[in-house]
Amino acid sequence: MSLIEELIEALRCLPGVGPKSAQRMTYHLLERDREGGRRIAHGITEAIEHVGNCRSCRTLSESELCPQCIDTRRDDSLLCIVESPMDVLALEQSASYRGRYFVLMGHLSPLDGIGPQELGLDLLEKRLDNGVVEEVILATNPTVEGEATAHFISEMAHARAIRTTRIAHGVPLGGELEYVDSGTLGHAMTGRQDY
Amino acid sequence: MSLIEELIEALRCLPGVGPKSAQRMTYHLLERDREGGRRIAHGITEAIEHVGNCRSCRTLSESELCPQCIDTRRDDSLLCIVESPMDVLALEQSASYRGRYFVLMGHLSPLDGIGPQELGLDLLEKRLDNGVVEEVILATNPTVEGEATAHFISEMAHARAIRTTRIAHGVPLGGELEYVDSGTLGHAMTGRQDY
Repeated sequence: MSLIEELIEALRCLPGVGPKSAQRMTYHLLERDREGGRRIAHGITEAIEHVGNCRSCRTLSESELCPQCIDTRRDDSLLCIVESPMDVLALEQSASYRGRYFVLMGHLSPLDGIGPQELGLDLLEKRLDNGVVEEVILATNPTVEGEATAHFISEMAHARAIRTTRIAHGVPLGGELEYVDSGTLGHAMTGRQDY
Repeated sequence: MSLIEELIEALRCLPGVGPKSAQRMTYHLLERDREGGRRIAHGITEAIEHVGNCRSCRTLSESELCPQCIDTRRDDSLLCIVESPMDVLALEQSASYRGRYFVLMGHLSPLDGIGPQELGLDLLEKRLDNGVVEEVILATNPTVEGEATAHFISEMAHARAIRTTRIAHGVPLGGELEYVDSGTLGHAMTGRQDY
């Protein structure tokens, strides 16, 4: 396999990139934008090397604690549970929430070997035990797995007499948080109800 | 700017990748496919470092001569002029041509400072002078710049009494007449052949 073919093949691991797009990207970089290519290679290498998970909320972060966990003006009594770091980004952009986050980095999926341990629910349990959290906002995706995950976490919270809420279903069913516009996300956040 | 933001920004130089896709790609790589990310970074670095241009036809190649120029079974009397290495790929996949190629790596565009020199037409001139080429097939894109480039090269060939042809433009196979633009239909009509 030539280097060009190898690069085309490598680019196909990107989401939404098929053989034709990968080919187009490869030739674009080599013909017209080698500087851009160098920037991408460098950016990936640096990010992979230095971006880990926030010690407190598990989101992707290049420091030990992410900006949302460090921010002292946030409301510690609210804890929003999301599946992925992109969901944090989307909620932050909707500017409808000023509490803390906990990022599962996935959802319960026993068939794929993803159980409570993999989602860091032991860490979440400790967090709920500290007596500061008064409301757990379940913002997992409105999919079967997301709902199951929300249910599981709500039981953990209920066992500690902590109120749980679920973001309102202004979010279209089967949709994914990261693709919803911020207005809709704002509605979903303010319209949350007891779970 | 954080490393994550830098990577999102860097990925935007890829064709067809906007802010949302770049974000999705970044999080995909960091959350789920760091190995794939490493492969991309490595692939880009290697390709940028080792892929240059074929000494004979100017297409992208990691050896001094590209596979099409090395292949001894090809017909040296046919020379097909295309704008980019992807055009070579497309023609090869159509399996309709077994002659040689010359790749301009662009088209004449005086406003962008792209003249005959930048398209390697001096190299093409030498190639036409060697007396082997009997037909120059103009396969530049059917755009204003592509047509101007084809015209320019046809004059070079005519000055050496070499036959020039232009690939046919018409209704694409599987296309429906009512959806084809009028320019293409005009070409199809004037270019009609005995049936």
